[in-house]
Amino acid sequence: MYTIREGRVEDLPKVLELVRELAIYEKAPDEVINTVEMMEKDGFGPHPVFGFFVAIKSETQEIVGTSIYYYRYSTWKGKRLYLEDLVVTASERGKGAGKMLFDRTLAKTLEDGCSGMTWQVLDWNTPAINFYQKYGADLDGEWINCNLQENQIKEILQIQ
Amino acid sequence: MYTIREGRVEDLPKVLELVRELAIYEKAPDEVINTVEMMEKDGFGPHPVFGFFVAIKSETQEIVGTSIYYYRYSTWKGKRLYLEDLVVTASERGKGAGKMLFDRTLAKTLEDGCSGMTWQVLDWNTPAINFYQKYGADLDGEWINCNLQENQIKEILQIQ
Repeated sequence: MYTIREGRVEDLPKVLELVRELAIYEKAPDEVINTVEMMEKDGFGPHPVFGFFVAIKSETQEIVGTSIYYYRYSTWKGKRLYLEDLVVTASERGKGAGKMLFDRTLAKTLEDGCSGMTWQVLDWNTPAINFYQKYGADLDGEWINCNLQENQIKEILQIQ
Repeated sequence: MYTIREGRVEDLPKVLELVRELAIYEKAPDEVINTVEMMEKDGFGPHPVFGFFVAIKSETQEIVGTSIYYYRYSTWKGKRLYLEDLVVTASERGKGAGKMLFDRTLAKTLEDGCSGMTWQVLDWNTPAINFYQKYGADLDGEWINCNLQENQIKEILQIQ
């Protein structure tokens, strides 16, 4: 059995471990440049830019999963809750913790007056796609993600 | 010739027109539920959730384009500037206004200490893809966008 509660600052080291576990699953372990210190500042400073829930395993009181969210602004739909990461550690998958985290985050979407919840899934992540389709989510694969990193931008704008 | 300046509240009716023009180009005109009133509240209230630049045509002093941005939080990369919309009205395309808006928004990314700029492009929008590739942007088409709207969430959670 699991319980879901809001995340606390002392959960961050474990939560960052889960973020890294997801990045490995998504074949991009080297993409994670975030640190516990950065997450502490960004999630618990005067203007928090993200929030999170954790799933606790009742028997051991360990954190076995997390959902991390923040707010987006859609010029089409207005304020949206964005589910940045939903991750349950490998050994605990398929036992309901993911559904509990997802549903709690859906409830947060309503609590905060957002027009809906938005997230992304990799096109080869069939278990996750099946999970989201059971909810009746609209899945749209027509979009390409684009990125320019800070050092590239400095080069483009010829800033030292 | 064009000049770029920060958006003002009185620009919003024209900016929403440009948002609608882009939605038509993106074959989703009915997806825009946003209004000038909502944009006024979300962009100019006590906690603005987005900002924008406008391109002004020198001869006529008309707004002919806009870039609309807000901040995202990446658990991999930290704070990101997200370019929500970049649009130049059809009659003014190909004359440099888009590049000026894009570059101004890149500069904003650095001004605000973000780790980079992120955006999306439709996979059939070849002119835009070519434009972004000239900048050396990383384009990743492996992700599917997922959405649940407020009314669907209420049904899922069985809330009246």
